[in-house]
Amino acid sequence: MTLLHFEDFRAGQVYDCGAHEITKDEIVDFARAFDPQPQHLDEDAGQRSLLGGLAASGWQVCAIGMRLFADGLILKSANKGGSRVQECRWMKPVKPGDRLRLDAHVVETNISRSRPDVGFVTFEWRIYNQVEQVASVILTPILGRREPGGA
Amino acid sequence: MTLLHFEDFRAGQVYDCGAHEITKDEIVDFARAFDPQPQHLDEDAGQRSLLGGLAASGWQVCAIGMRLFADGLILKSANKGGSRVQECRWMKPVKPGDRLRLDAHVVETNISRSRPDVGFVTFEWRIYNQVEQVASVILTPILGRREPGGA
Repeated sequence: MTLLHFEDFRAGQVYDCGAHEITKDEIVDFARAFDPQPQHLDEDAGQRSLLGGLAASGWQVCAIGMRLFADGLILKSANKGGSRVQECRWMKPVKPGDRLRLDAHVVETNISRSRPDVGFVTFEWRIYNQVEQVASVILTPILGRREPGGA
Repeated sequence: MTLLHFEDFRAGQVYDCGAHEITKDEIVDFARAFDPQPQHLDEDAGQRSLLGGLAASGWQVCAIGMRLFADGLILKSANKGGSRVQECRWMKPVKPGDRLRLDAHVVETNISRSRPDVGFVTFEWRIYNQVEQVASVILTPILGRREPGGA
């Protein structure tokens, strides 16, 4: 398999990274481990919260986004890792049975000034449920260059 | 227990949110579920990566940060949930046996223009291992006001 390199990415490209249907057990298990706020653990508490029902931790939405991004793009690339997230917005509650789908939009690409063998590709993840966008995450993985030092 | 409300927070405050020692099994289990990049799954692959050894997914560092923040502050507050993360920086690799400690710094506080019963408190999480800072996360939970509509 030919790995995607820095040079393969252009602003405006969109990668379909597939989907994952989230279950109630997944929501509660993640919340018990990492975000034990009542609205992530219990339906009644969720109903009393701004979320309007049991809903996933925003950090779980990010983690599922990472899994889709990994399977759909990063594991097929000369990825060197990531160092920062510029923004993460949780726009709508994610509820049991929601099918989360991720599109990765290329925002911009920049070569590294200090390392001729890598470049930075900034992506915006747009995560959707069945009917609307639920989250946006902007982050910049480091990608290997096919032609180190090239223009 | 008296819950912390919006009025209790002031820029410059620092809340010690405790610590969690991360194990190799935790790192590999999280990576299998959410971030199956080789450097998060395997010591040899980690050695060959920029991380210099098996190291945790940055998203796991955030999730552990959320757990410490929840136990140390949010579950003791009139929290209404969060809606955005302004920045997340992963500064150093997190390795098996690292003891992650979180300080939550209050950056700024703002009342809501549209809802007199809540306000926004922006925190910077500073996450440390035994010797240095490994991550920084800036985020803004929504906190209930003790005196809705007050000055």
